[in-house]
Amino acid sequence: MAKEKKQPRPKAETPKGFRDYFGAEVTERQQMLEKIAEVYRLHGFDPLETSAVETVEALGKFLPDVDRPNEGVFAFEEDDTWLALRYDLTAPLARVAAQYRNDLPFPYRRYAMGPVWRNEKPGPGRFRQFYQCDADTVGAPSVAADAEICGMLADTLEAVGIPRGDYIVRVNNRKVLNGVMEVAEILDPTNPDKFAYERGVVLRAIDKLDRLGVDGVRALLGEGRKDESGDFTKGAGLNAEQMLPLIEFVNAHTAIQSDLASYQQEIDAPGGERVLQGMVAFQKRENELLGLPKMEAFNRVKNQFAADYLRSIVKSSMCGVEGVSELETISNLLAAQGYGGDRIVIDPSVVRGLGYYTGPVFEAELTFEILDEKGRPRQFGSVAGGGRYDDLVKRFTGQEVPATGVSIGVDRLLAALRAKGRLTGETQGPVIVTVMDRDRMADYQAMAATLRQAGIRAEVYLGNPKNFGNQLKYADKRASPVAVIQGEDEALRGVVQLKDLILGAKLAQEATLEEWKSQPAQVEVPLAYLVEETRKLLDRHR
Amino acid sequence: MAKEKKQPRPKAETPKGFRDYFGAEVTERQQMLEKIAEVYRLHGFDPLETSAVETVEALGKFLPDVDRPNEGVFAFEEDDTWLALRYDLTAPLARVAAQYRNDLPFPYRRYAMGPVWRNEKPGPGRFRQFYQCDADTVGAPSVAADAEICGMLADTLEAVGIPRGDYIVRVNNRKVLNGVMEVAEILDPTNPDKFAYERGVVLRAIDKLDRLGVDGVRALLGEGRKDESGDFTKGAGLNAEQMLPLIEFVNAHTAIQSDLASYQQEIDAPGGERVLQGMVAFQKRENELLGLPKMEAFNRVKNQFAADYLRSIVKSSMCGVEGVSELETISNLLAAQGYGGDRIVIDPSVVRGLGYYTGPVFEAELTFEILDEKGRPRQFGSVAGGGRYDDLVKRFTGQEVPATGVSIGVDRLLAALRAKGRLTGETQGPVIVTVMDRDRMADYQAMAATLRQAGIRAEVYLGNPKNFGNQLKYADKRASPVAVIQGEDEALRGVVQLKDLILGAKLAQEATLEEWKSQPAQVEVPLAYLVEETRKLLDRHR
Repeated sequence: MAKEKKQPRPKAETPKGFRDYFGAEVTERQQMLEKIAEVYRLHGFDPLETSAVETVEALGKFLPDVDRPNEGVFAFEEDDTWLALRYDLTAPLARVAAQYRNDLPFPYRRYAMGPVWRNEKPGPGRFRQFYQCDADTVGAPSVAADAEICGMLADTLEAVGIPRGDYIVRVNNRKVLNGVMEVAEILDPTNPDKFAYERGVVLRAIDKLDRLGVDGVRALLGEGRKDESGDFTKGAGLNAEQMLPLIEFVNAHTAIQSDLASYQQEIDAPGGERVLQGMVAFQKRENELLGLPKMEAFNRVKNQFAADYLRSIVKSSMCGVEGVSELETISNLLAAQGYGGDRIVIDPSVVRGLGYYTGPVFEAELTFEILDEKGRPRQFGSVAGGGRYDDLVKRFTGQEVPATGVSIGVDRLLAALRAKGRLTGETQGPVIVTVMDRDRMADYQAMAATLRQAGIRAEVYLGNPKNFGNQLKYADKRASPVAVIQGEDEALRGVVQLKDLILGAKLAQEATLEEWKSQPAQVEVPLAYLVEETRKLLDRHR
Repeated sequence: MAKEKKQPRPKAETPKGFRDYFGAEVTERQQMLEKIAEVYRLHGFDPLETSAVETVEALGKFLPDVDRPNEGVFAFEEDDTWLALRYDLTAPLARVAAQYRNDLPFPYRRYAMGPVWRNEKPGPGRFRQFYQCDADTVGAPSVAADAEICGMLADTLEAVGIPRGDYIVRVNNRKVLNGVMEVAEILDPTNPDKFAYERGVVLRAIDKLDRLGVDGVRALLGEGRKDESGDFTKGAGLNAEQMLPLIEFVNAHTAIQSDLASYQQEIDAPGGERVLQGMVAFQKRENELLGLPKMEAFNRVKNQFAADYLRSIVKSSMCGVEGVSELETISNLLAAQGYGGDRIVIDPSVVRGLGYYTGPVFEAELTFEILDEKGRPRQFGSVAGGGRYDDLVKRFTGQEVPATGVSIGVDRLLAALRAKGRLTGETQGPVIVTVMDRDRMADYQAMAATLRQAGIRAEVYLGNPKNFGNQLKYADKRASPVAVIQGEDEALRGVVQLKDLILGAKLAQEATLEEWKSQPAQVEVPLAYLVEETRKLLDRHR
């Protein structure tokens, strides 16, 4: 008879790419979500919570990586229906907007927060479950809705603790991109499906400008590019004439920034008013900018300068010109509310991976430097993004429903604040009522209850009480500020000992033997004054 | 050539058994979770958030329905590993306690909140995703930990708005159940696997006492039971002698309650002190209960009476007697803190479905009546449950790690409060700035921004502004309290119209034509006083 095989023990491990969050990590995120929700709510957005699971059919296939359109989600089959974990909060919103289209108020402003799941290769700091916090407006065709989202995004970043100057909201427009494609003759408005492959290659190439440089992009626009490892990526196969407007476009951001930087220098210098006046007059904005300090006025004309620059590239495309006009409108609406070009910038290098955008796209970037894993300084980068997606609801209903929105990557934003030391999650543990006599557990629990009734976080030690040292080690591990001690002797006299653990730890490092012996970190108080005396010790360390 | 088939449109539907939550439903839950977390935190519990996805191996198979141990979860295979959505928050805690056993402070008090998923047949009010909010203590062998959880559960229910008297925490002990099984000779301590089938049938039968009655249970203990539809359920096949202690046990709860009810009547009557004194003397608690009002003292001896009753049934089983002693300790620890038998009750009818409990089990029940779907009054029933599970962590490590905890069914608790009209989710919408002149969008957005800077929830109407009636209909649908109106004429004069929409709606129902014409619900104010005047209107309806 074969020997019975013993079942091996299960491994105590999170699945690959998932992680656990403890203590302050949880409360800090919760506090951030509440702050973001408060800004969204103040702007008239209402909460919506959909479930984690959607039908694959309803989710659609909109993940960035167009090379593997079927992958990227966690899917499973139930009762002959394929279900999947949501990969973002936008696809569920499109489903909701279609499903409840007769009941919801339109325009429908909604916010949503929660985890999303991506079945992607995990990496350092890159997990398969992460939090998003989105706000979207469905049913508002005007770019005033996009402007509102961009302004709200700036407000949100400031509300969670990113000061002005440490972030920038960059705005572009898919229509401008399409305009350039038209000029380059790889977009035929009468046949939108034509040249789809070429456009895909071009978009991804532009998106990688940072990494590849202009020459790398040029190679991808042409025959293709061999990377350092020798791998060859097939290009879009464009000719020189087609490449010209694309390269001009790729260079636009750098060119605009460099022009604006020299203007800024000139304006900032004594007599710089004259240069500014020239720009203001060219933009016919004398009335609007009258009386503003010169750098503030400059902040408000910057984006118009960028728009004029882009218009010169796409001027032969109707779609492109419309896109630039929309960017102008957004920037003017925002400038009127005081969001100048120092916070919200027209930036043609913003592409945004997702294929479903149809108009303005935007991205919030943190501009301060942090140290990467290898100690090298680098810009923190993008923490939020979004844009207009007018066709997502149409998938369900056949009717066009305009929509625009933003998604904040809450975990990245938390990482940024943590890197800057700007998070204040609670680190102080509870008051620990120690157990000297295990038969008097009821008394100890009553003490903890008394403290709690006064709003003081408190608990009784529930491990094996035999070794008192272990109780203090536990209190230390919990970062407990105060230990309450009552042995037989104290109980008979109706008193307790309060041990100030924070002062105690400090003394242990610094005190002389004499100081130490005088036990300044421990006081004996009547049991009746437990609350008042504990509070005194807690107040010491506020 | 075959004609190309057009892709059908996706259905805008939640998957079967899932639902969406809108507006106040979301905020009310969020507020409840915060209140619960605050009580947990005050008791020294620290937050933990694990991800939705675990390995199937780590989750184990502990769902109640022992007939289908492999089902009940949403599972999927990734990279040769079976993963599943968590079905509760306890299994992930056991995994965490094992995985981080060298780093966590023990006893480890943690709380967790979030959705869990069950792949079960959905029904009315029964969804496949729902919220739980758990608190557990891992590493505390003493039943003081169980007592703490029971007391905290009572505090939590009161904190979320269930007044004393509307809930009861019922406590039982698996060891008492096992004791009865030993007495009935279907549990052999030297061979715990023996009679597992019989015990499964017995447990499920006892759990269904409410529905089946004593005769139904008796049938299941014996040969089996035919239900109304004619379906036959095989029984445990016990003989009359074996059935006796089990039936006595099944009847115990009713017997205890009926005895206590007649004592209560006697004690409540004039001269009832004598009866009470008898009970107190029998329990040797004269000192402890000295000076308490008689009904309060009675509340504190009730549970001891129940314990004595149970002891008489299991007296020949060591395990059973130990279980009764634990119940006594729990009830005494709680009574010392003022949690009397009116709030926390020893109740042998509590079974709790989950197979992993090893000691005390508890359940919080709401005792008020609500109307069911058919308008019939019924008790609301259970909203939370838990117990001691000393073997869950051992699965991973091989070492025994005692643990106890409670899980609150947040969605059921919300439904209860909703049924009693005790939820105060925000229902007032934002102030709506209407759009009379679409070229002046920047001005309207600036007005909304001004209101928001003063902390007033406000938004600009972003639909097609052409039909003003639609703007007011939208404001109505959003439950907006105030509309701001500025046409060309008002703009020139530097004023705005404020429309009190709540008063307006009231007048529309009640006012005479004369009253209506005088437009009392609309005021004209200088734009510079927008904030102050809007606030006045909002304050009217607080």
